[in-house]
Amino acid sequence: MKSLDYSIIETILTNFIRNEVQKCGFKKAMLGLSGGVDSAVSVVLATKALGPENVLAVMMPYKTSSKDSLGDAKLLVEKFDIPYEVCEISPVVDAFFEQHPDADNLRRGNAMARTRMMTLYDISARDSRLVIGTSNKTELLLGYGTLYGDMASAINPIGDLYKTQIWKLARHLDVPSEIIDKIPSADLWEGQSDEDELGFSYSDVDEVLYLMVEERLSDKEIIEKGTEKQFLEKVKRMVVRNQYKRMGPVIAKVSARTLGIDFRYARDWQVVR
Amino acid sequence: MKSLDYSIIETILTNFIRNEVQKCGFKKAMLGLSGGVDSAVSVVLATKALGPENVLAVMMPYKTSSKDSLGDAKLLVEKFDIPYEVCEISPVVDAFFEQHPDADNLRRGNAMARTRMMTLYDISARDSRLVIGTSNKTELLLGYGTLYGDMASAINPIGDLYKTQIWKLARHLDVPSEIIDKIPSADLWEGQSDEDELGFSYSDVDEVLYLMVEERLSDKEIIEKGTEKQFLEKVKRMVVRNQYKRMGPVIAKVSARTLGIDFRYARDWQVVR
Repeated sequence: MKSLDYSIIETILTNFIRNEVQKCGFKKAMLGLSGGVDSAVSVVLATKALGPENVLAVMMPYKTSSKDSLGDAKLLVEKFDIPYEVCEISPVVDAFFEQHPDADNLRRGNAMARTRMMTLYDISARDSRLVIGTSNKTELLLGYGTLYGDMASAINPIGDLYKTQIWKLARHLDVPSEIIDKIPSADLWEGQSDEDELGFSYSDVDEVLYLMVEERLSDKEIIEKGTEKQFLEKVKRMVVRNQYKRMGPVIAKVSARTLGIDFRYARDWQVVR
Repeated sequence: MKSLDYSIIETILTNFIRNEVQKCGFKKAMLGLSGGVDSAVSVVLATKALGPENVLAVMMPYKTSSKDSLGDAKLLVEKFDIPYEVCEISPVVDAFFEQHPDADNLRRGNAMARTRMMTLYDISARDSRLVIGTSNKTELLLGYGTLYGDMASAINPIGDLYKTQIWKLARHLDVPSEIIDKIPSADLWEGQSDEDELGFSYSDVDEVLYLMVEERLSDKEIIEKGTEKQFLEKVKRMVVRNQYKRMGPVIAKVSARTLGIDFRYARDWQVVR
C-alpha cells in the first residue's frame, strides 16, 4: 500500500467537513464516539474543521460495553476539549429484546447499532446538528457494519481510508495511544474482537483490498504477490455479497424517470431539471 | 398524468419481486403493514409474486396508533390469507423517550419509524426474509418519510408509482375499499393527516411532480398548465432539499476508487473488477 502524506489528508478532510456541513445548511455537527480509533479520528477532524464548540460527541454505552471504551472516549474529549453527552442505550435495547428473548448476538449487536443511530438522529433533530459518519473503507468494502446502524450518517470523512491508514492518521492527529493501540472491537458483546470474528487481520485484508480496488490487479497478479487464493476468494465474496449495504433500496422501474436509476443528482444539487 | 394499464404494472411488479428476492438469495419476504394503502398494495404484490406462505406481514402499532389501522391491516391479511405478526413498539419507543422527555411530535414520529425498521430487520435476520419497502414515488420525491425508518428496505416494488397511481393499483388488486378510501395518514400521532401536514393534496402535487419529473416541462410550461407559481416553488424546494434522504452518506474522496463516487456497481453485481 502506498504511504500517504497525512498532513495533506488532514487538510482535505477538514475542508470536506467544513464545506459539507455548510452546504447542508448546518453550523454544528455531531458524532457517536465509541472509544475506538475510527470515531476518535472523525471527532478530531470535525473539531479541527468546525471548532470544538460546534461539535458534540455522543457516547452510547450498552450495559455489556467495556468500561475501557467509555474511559477512552472521555480521555479523547478531555484532551481536545470537545463537548459530550452520554446516552445509555440499555433500557431501549432491553425493551426491544423483551419481545425477542431468543435473539442471538448478531441480532443483538445490530439492534444496538440501530438504537445508536436512532439516538444520534434524534439529537441531530433536537440540536440541528449534522451527523458525521465514522465507517472506514475496510469495513464498508467488507460489509462489516450494521446497515441503518453505524453505517448511517450524512457525511463520512473517513470512508475512503483503510483501517491501517486510519491508525496512521490517528497518530498524525495525536489521538491518545490507548485508543490507537488497543485491539479493534465493535464492542457489541464482551470480548468481541474484529480480527477474531473476521478470521484475518486488518493489515492482511487491507493489502488485498488495496491491490483489488485501487491497483485493479487481476486475481492472478494478486496471488503472485503472495496472497493465498482461498483468502482472496473469501475477501472478494464479502465485498460482492455486501454490496447491498452500500446502496439504497432497489426500485422497480415503471416510469420515465425512476429514483436511483435515471433520476440521479448529486446531493448538493440545487435545481430540478 | 397518463393513465396506466394496471394489469401490466401488476405483472412487472410481481416479476420484479420474484426476481429480486431470488437474486438476493432469499425465498421468503416480509413487510411492515400499517393499515394504509401503500403497504397494502406492496403486501398483495408480494403475495402474488411469492405465494402467501412465503410472505410475512408485520403490524407494529404504537399505543397512540389508530385502532382502525390495525383493524384494516387484519382485514387485508384475512382477505388474502397472509401470515402475520403483531409487534408492539410502545415499550421500545417509550424507553427511548424517557431519556428525551421534551421531544416533539416530529422526533417521536421519527423514532417510531426507526423502531419499526429495527423490528423488521430483526425479524428479517431471525427468519432469513427479505424486507420489501413500501414508499411511493410521491413521498420519496418530497422526502415525506423517515430516513433509516420507513424509507429503509432491500427492494421497493412501488417506489416508481405516485400516490394517486397507488390508489388505482389498489383497486385493480382488489384491496379492501376501507383501506383505499380512508384519509392518508402516517398515523404517528392522533388525527395526523398527510394532506393537512403537507398543505396540499396528493392529486395536486402528483400532477406537478409528473409534469416536472416525467414530462420534464419547464417552470413556465408548468405554470401555463394552471399550477400556481408559489406551489410549484414549494414542491421544487421539497424535492431538492430532501435529496439527501434518497442517497447514501457522502464520502470524502482521497483514493483512486471511492465508494459511491467511482466504485459503483449494480446491487446484483457478481465479480470485483
